Amino acid sequence: MTGLKIAIIGAGSSYTPELIEGLIQRRHELPLRELWLVDIEDGREKMAIIADLTRRMLARAGLTLPVLETLNRREALLGADFVCSQFRAGCLEARIRDERISLRHGLIGQETNGLGGFANACRTIPIALAIAAEMEELCPDAWLLNFTNPSGMVTEAVLRHSRVKAVGLCNVPVIMQKGVAQLLGCQRESDFVMQVAGLNHFIFVRQILQQGEDRLPQVIAQITQGPDPLVPRNIPPFRWPQHLLTGLGMIPCAYLRYYYMSDDILQQELGEANGEGTRGEVVKALEQKLFEIYRDPDLAVKPKALEGRGGQYYSEAACELMSAIYNDKRIIMHVNTRNQGTIAGLPDDCAVEVSALITRSGPLPLNVAPFPEDVLRLLQLMKSFEQLTISAAISGDRHTAWRALVLNPLVRSGTVLERALDDVIEENRDLLPAFHRQH
Amino acid sequence: MTGLKIAIIGAGSSYTPELIEGLIQRRHELPLRELWLVDIEDGREKMAIIADLTRRMLARAGLTLPVLETLNRREALLGADFVCSQFRAGCLEARIRDERISLRHGLIGQETNGLGGFANACRTIPIALAIAAEMEELCPDAWLLNFTNPSGMVTEAVLRHSRVKAVGLCNVPVIMQKGVAQLLGCQRESDFVMQVAGLNHFIFVRQILQQGEDRLPQVIAQITQGPDPLVPRNIPPFRWPQHLLTGLGMIPCAYLRYYYMSDDILQQELGEANGEGTRGEVVKALEQKLFEIYRDPDLAVKPKALEGRGGQYYSEAACELMSAIYNDKRIIMHVNTRNQGTIAGLPDDCAVEVSALITRSGPLPLNVAPFPEDVLRLLQLMKSFEQLTISAAISGDRHTAWRALVLNPLVRSGTVLERALDDVIEENRDLLPAFHRQH
Amino acid sequence: MTGLKIAIIGAGSSYTPELIEGLIQRRHELPLRELWLVDIEDGREKMAIIADLTRRMLARAGLTLPVLETLNRREALLGADFVCSQFRAGCLEARIRDERISLRHGLIGQETNGLGGFANACRTIPIALAIAAEMEELCPDAWLLNFTNPSGMVTEAVLRHSRVKAVGLCNVPVIMQKGVAQLLGCQRESDFVMQVAGLNHFIFVRQILQQGEDRLPQVIAQITQGPDPLVPRNIPPFRWPQHLLTGLGMIPCAYLRYYYMSDDILQQELGEANGEGTRGEVVKALEQKLFEIYRDPDLAVKPKALEGRGGQYYSEAACELMSAIYNDKRIIMHVNTRNQGTIAGLPDDCAVEVSALITRSGPLPLNVAPFPEDVLRLLQLMKSFEQLTISAAISGDRHTAWRALVLNPLVRSGTVLERALDDVIEENRDLLPAFHRQH
Amino acid sequence: MTGLKIAIIGAGSSYTPELIEGLIQRRHELPLRELWLVDIEDGREKMAIIADLTRRMLARAGLTLPVLETLNRREALLGADFVCSQFRAGCLEARIRDERISLRHGLIGQETNGLGGFANACRTIPIALAIAAEMEELCPDAWLLNFTNPSGMVTEAVLRHSRVKAVGLCNVPVIMQKGVAQLLGCQRESDFVMQVAGLNHFIFVRQILQQGEDRLPQVIAQITQGPDPLVPRNIPPFRWPQHLLTGLGMIPCAYLRYYYMSDDILQQELGEANGEGTRGEVVKALEQKLFEIYRDPDLAVKPKALEGRGGQYYSEAACELMSAIYNDKRIIMHVNTRNQGTIAGLPDDCAVEVSALITRSGPLPLNVAPFPEDVLRLLQLMKSFEQLTISAAISGDRHTAWRALVLNPLVRSGTVLERALDDVIEENRDLLPAFHRQH
Repeated sequence: MTGLKIAIIGAGSSYTPELIEGLIQRRHELPLRELWLVDIEDGREKMAIIADLTRRMLARAGLTLPVLETLNRREALLGADFVCSQFRAGCLEARIRDERISLRHGLIGQETNGLGGFANACRTIPIALAIAAEMEELCPDAWLLNFTNPSGMVTEAVLRHSRVKAVGLCNVPVIMQKGVAQLLGCQRESDFVMQVAGLNHFIFVRQILQQGEDRLPQVIAQITQGPDPLVPRNIPPFRWPQHLLTGLGMIPCAYLRYYYMSDDILQQELGEANGEGTRGEVVKALEQKLFEIYRDPDLAVKPKALEGRGGQYYSEAACELMSAIYNDKRIIMHVNTRNQGTIAGLPDDCAVEVSALITRSGPLPLNVAPFPEDVLRLLQLMKSFEQLTISAAISGDRHTAWRALVLNPLVRSGTVLERALDDVIEENRDLLPAFHRQH
Repeated sequence: MTGLKIAIIGAGSSYTPELIEGLIQRRHELPLRELWLVDIEDGREKMAIIADLTRRMLARAGLTLPVLETLNRREALLGADFVCSQFRAGCLEARIRDERISLRHGLIGQETNGLGGFANACRTIPIALAIAAEMEELCPDAWLLNFTNPSGMVTEAVLRHSRVKAVGLCNVPVIMQKGVAQLLGCQRESDFVMQVAGLNHFIFVRQILQQGEDRLPQVIAQITQGPDPLVPRNIPPFRWPQHLLTGLGMIPCAYLRYYYMSDDILQQELGEANGEGTRGEVVKALEQKLFEIYRDPDLAVKPKALEGRGGQYYSEAACELMSAIYNDKRIIMHVNTRNQGTIAGLPDDCAVEVSALITRSGPLPLNVAPFPEDVLRLLQLMKSFEQLTISAAISGDRHTAWRALVLNPLVRSGTVLERALDDVIEENRDLLPAFHRQH
Repeated sequence: MTGLKIAIIGAGSSYTPELIEGLIQRRHELPLRELWLVDIEDGREKMAIIADLTRRMLARAGLTLPVLETLNRREALLGADFVCSQFRAGCLEARIRDERISLRHGLIGQETNGLGGFANACRTIPIALAIAAEMEELCPDAWLLNFTNPSGMVTEAVLRHSRVKAVGLCNVPVIMQKGVAQLLGCQRESDFVMQVAGLNHFIFVRQILQQGEDRLPQVIAQITQGPDPLVPRNIPPFRWPQHLLTGLGMIPCAYLRYYYMSDDILQQELGEANGEGTRGEVVKALEQKLFEIYRDPDLAVKPKALEGRGGQYYSEAACELMSAIYNDKRIIMHVNTRNQGTIAGLPDDCAVEVSALITRSGPLPLNVAPFPEDVLRLLQLMKSFEQLTISAAISGDRHTAWRALVLNPLVRSGTVLERALDDVIEENRDLLPAFHRQH
Repeated sequence: MTGLKIAIIGAGSSYTPELIEGLIQRRHELPLRELWLVDIEDGREKMAIIADLTRRMLARAGLTLPVLETLNRREALLGADFVCSQFRAGCLEARIRDERISLRHGLIGQETNGLGGFANACRTIPIALAIAAEMEELCPDAWLLNFTNPSGMVTEAVLRHSRVKAVGLCNVPVIMQKGVAQLLGCQRESDFVMQVAGLNHFIFVRQILQQGEDRLPQVIAQITQGPDPLVPRNIPPFRWPQHLLTGLGMIPCAYLRYYYMSDDILQQELGEANGEGTRGEVVKALEQKLFEIYRDPDLAVKPKALEGRGGQYYSEAACELMSAIYNDKRIIMHVNTRNQGTIAGLPDDCAVEVSALITRSGPLPLNVAPFPEDVLRLLQLMKSFEQLTISAAISGDRHTAWRALVLNPLVRSGTVLERALDDVIEENRDLLPAFHRQH
């Protein structure tokens, strides 16, 4: 059969139109056969809105591709070539609960890290593994492009516990690449090579090669003195501590403010929670508005408003990755993939987020020079947190859960941690069956 | 010349009588020639009180050993066989300042760790290195027994930056050994082998061998269910989190409550600071009372009251170590020494606190089985903190100081850290010359 | 029951009288209950001779201990406290065959290394594992003292594939310790601490501590200039290459002549094979003479002639180890035990030969400082050879066997290796069932 | 100035016409300004012949580029953009001497490995470092493309002891890539990704990716059963031992026959030395014929006869690398570059031969999955040999030289090694000044 079958899991997401736009833009390099939208019962209505918008967008672009909606994941997966995973276990309500539990205990409430990231991973990983098991059966040659959060842990869980060809994606390095291009005054992003390395939401720019020179010191000087275009909209653009960039000689991704500026972030979050609402609450309101817009039968393009959503370029990265694989483009992209020695000091079989050459056979990571010891120690600590979290997500073992969380620098230890963990497990009663099986 | 020359640096310490008692008890195995007491001008009066008490104690024991007081360290070091280092740079006032700065910024204030440990190390290490340089010249064969805090970092600094034969000591493993003996109902501590490993104030009991069995699980069960005699008096005896001992299968030393129960410790410290005073303030009052007692011309033994001081057994360990070296005893003691692969995953040339066979040629560490990954990560992180701290102490470089502190789990990051570091440097103006040279 | 039950596997060995002598010498520290001699049908006659001599020796010493001979290993193992393993799979005939095959292909023929060591391991390991399985059932608390060759590989196989408490022994470090004592002019071996590390028959003296000094440079100078008393009688006492000791700053054990002087050893062996016979052939003749002597009903002590046998002190080490364990002696002995990080760069769960403190709970290895890189590489290569050999011994897989041998520096590669391996498998038809099961 | 200045060191080599042909073929992508030929007095005549041929070849191609001959290396290096290093220290005579010394002692005589590789490295590295020092001064931004043998060690020496941007090249992976293309039936080599890793002349094919599949097992099956087109002409095309390819699941480069089939190679070399001559002698005769041909004033293209020379594709690789750097081609090539963690288990700052993305800023190595332990051990051993050799080449220290050689599996140890080393030093009196300075 000619043309690709693409399945989108969690298709009711407000991000889907960006994905559709990306596919339309690449119509000449990515021949499509069928587009399958999958969601669960709770997302049926949103998916319907998205499906209609998708059909209008395709029609406007002159594409006559079948768009199929289903609650039956298996029929969507059967024979698929690419599977995009972008679901949110427990919906935004669960994310908001995580944030509120965290802040109640004086902890940062964040979707991919700390207590919130832990809870999210525990809800999500069992579902991701179920999808992977179905893919092994129904589309063993398909690529899984995962942008379901926490993307690093979910990708690692799938890579370790299945034979599925999975790649994790994130918009953070995409935004950094665009920001660096702007600072260097480059028209094309391929005019330089930016190499990143680390874990998802925990990466560092290691070098920016242009014309035989490493421009990293220059870029560090620029963002130290002027505006910093490397920060996504959903992260407070606090200036980095004066000692950080100079001391490290590397640029941390914006999410590293959660570590290097944890107290400021916590104050900011506490203020927001008492004001306009937590990030989850703000996003929920924004999403409602977006779906209002999506419903408009005259809308046949991705609306401008989506760009305020925070996850910008996620879907563009996904489409570019599909094309790079399909067309053996051999371009450099930044992806979550198996470490296999790429970052020395992290386990071989863990997932890392690194710059890789994308070939028809998937990503071939570029080697990464050894990290300075202090940064390596943080990466190792975080990876241990991630691996214990994955283990707890699967087993539902509370000892393991506690050992994971007590390692995490965003979490405070002692009685507060024991209570916070109890609250997470209690308030996710239906969403964490493994933890409740034990009792 | 027959008999040993012993020099005590910081002899005006209230602990000195315990050291004297230990020497008296070992009079038949440790022949002494001269006892030199050294202090600085600010400690002259305390040293005089100690010297008089020492002479009375020796007389009472029937020993006719010369006891010499001096402010001239070089004459005390010349030809010494053992040098006991137990000074406190900046006296208790500096410790109290560290505590108050820390608590003001919402941080744990502790003498050997976190912000306070950092400040203490920065004050102390340059002095320790000056002593080591003098020892290289004046008594190159002498053993330096260091119990100056932070003992681990001070010992490492001396081991890395001099050729002095240095061993660091701590009372924490001594108290643990006695506690375990009590739980096992052993008359003699040598009835079992307790092996510890880690960093100073950051050790874990790895095995408790008795009659071919590892009693560690039994001891864990005992301290989980009943009283915990492994805790020194100066650490709040909070019960360990339920997940910790079971999860790890190891017993952390009491100081690890600063990590695994950081929030409870912080609350406790904040309460104390607003009540009876910080630990430093309490100790200061206690010391004044001790020196009142020491002044009593009728006192000729170590007074009972010293046992409330917290540093119990420090000096006993020092005397036992001297005797074990001098007599080639080949007993197992717990000391700070060069790692050289003892703990896998830590640098070869760093200092670790481990169980070692004590010979005439010094400590030969027993090998340590690999740590579980989550504990290893903490040890590695702490060692990176320690090494950056040592580097900052010597160079006075603020970037390095910040990089050290931002790694430490007891320290919060962001603006709060930048301000706290500024305060430490500002309020130690005369005590941190390296940091002020820079400006 | 009071007193120890000791089982000797391979009791028909000509070494047994030394073991009996050692037990008699330690009669006051090692209370015995029963002594069981075990052998197979082929060794029945030799065992009978040994048993009679043993009874005469015990009687002469005034000991009334039951000495039981059996071909039924299980009854000997039942409830044993110590099991001494000293059997030779395939008897001396197999060893001689190995030597002849090796020399025929231009290879060194040696019992514990190279092609011969490989063949010996493949014959022996399955039997050792069968014994270990029986011990798990019949005497789970017993200690297995293994001096069956190749001792390092056999010990590792048992440690990895059973729960038996096994310690491997060798006379090489014992002879080195005695030689060093002689060079230092020490009356007692405990006057100094000699630390060795490496693999069985592949160890290096790392330090010789006496009075706070490392005497290693002095001892190196002595054996460079004068006679070398560290060499067992069965190794050609070639002088070390001039560059070796000076370059390394360590003393290799005598067996390392097989590596560092492989060509001279090969020439020597070829000469012997064409003259008085291979080592195995010489030993066979010697054994026959020994058994003649053993038969003498008037003989009631270990005969002088045994000392020419090469394995001197093996049994003394075994008796000393039994006593050190039984009496919690906490002396330093040199044993084969689990690495667990003792030698950095070798796998945690492999067997290494190192200096260890012997306690009632077994050996606690002293930590070993990192090896210089060139020696570490040899150790790693040899360990890979050993591990592949163990794997081949169990599986009978020829690919694995080839991969083991092609790594070994004593073996030449190419067609010669393929033929030599074929010959080993063919000429051990009945002794290597795993390899023949495959066909 | 527009256009590139290229300097060729050792321009009197018979390979130079291939280099010229490569430059002519790339005339549209590599704009040239000046071509400088450099050699020493002994090579003056050959260089003159090459220079004339070069001018004829350029003229025939319609290129009007200045071709300058010089014995003054500095004027050639001044302002150069690319420096091609292809000299042979001591000329073919030295190579032949190495071969004859080796064979006389029963050792393999080979130009890049074993005793011959050692001798060659010791002659060459001091000169390579002198060139690098001049480049730092005269053309600090130039790229050094090294194909002077032993290419791996020479490249490492330059990378470690200078700041020159050096890349080492070899024709072995080029030939393997072409062989694989032939076996896969691919028109274009870019239709698949072949990844190699190891050390120079010691590499393994790790994967052959095509259409999302790893074709390595298929290619292994092909060369096991049929002809093996991956072997250069100068290596005996012995079939691999049956256990090797199946056991490893990787394809060793042809030079690994020197290890895995050392005995067959040695027999072959001994036969050749007694027959048509050693490889060096054969090459010498071939070179004389080639220079006869080069002299022909009618010759204006690279002659067919050069293809029999063994070093085929060396120069093509060099030209392609120049173009890939100059044009930021981002193609994958196989080069010697700094390890920096690319191959786990080898030092960070050593040179490795790996597949890399070639950018304007030089090679970015692709990450390499961990090697199986047995192969890693060989790589580590060889790297230790290389590093000790480099150290000996610089210091002239005989202890170090011996320690290097005794590690090498191609060298036999004992008296034979001591004599062979003496002979190498003695017979290279003028070519190894560092070794003779010592005496």
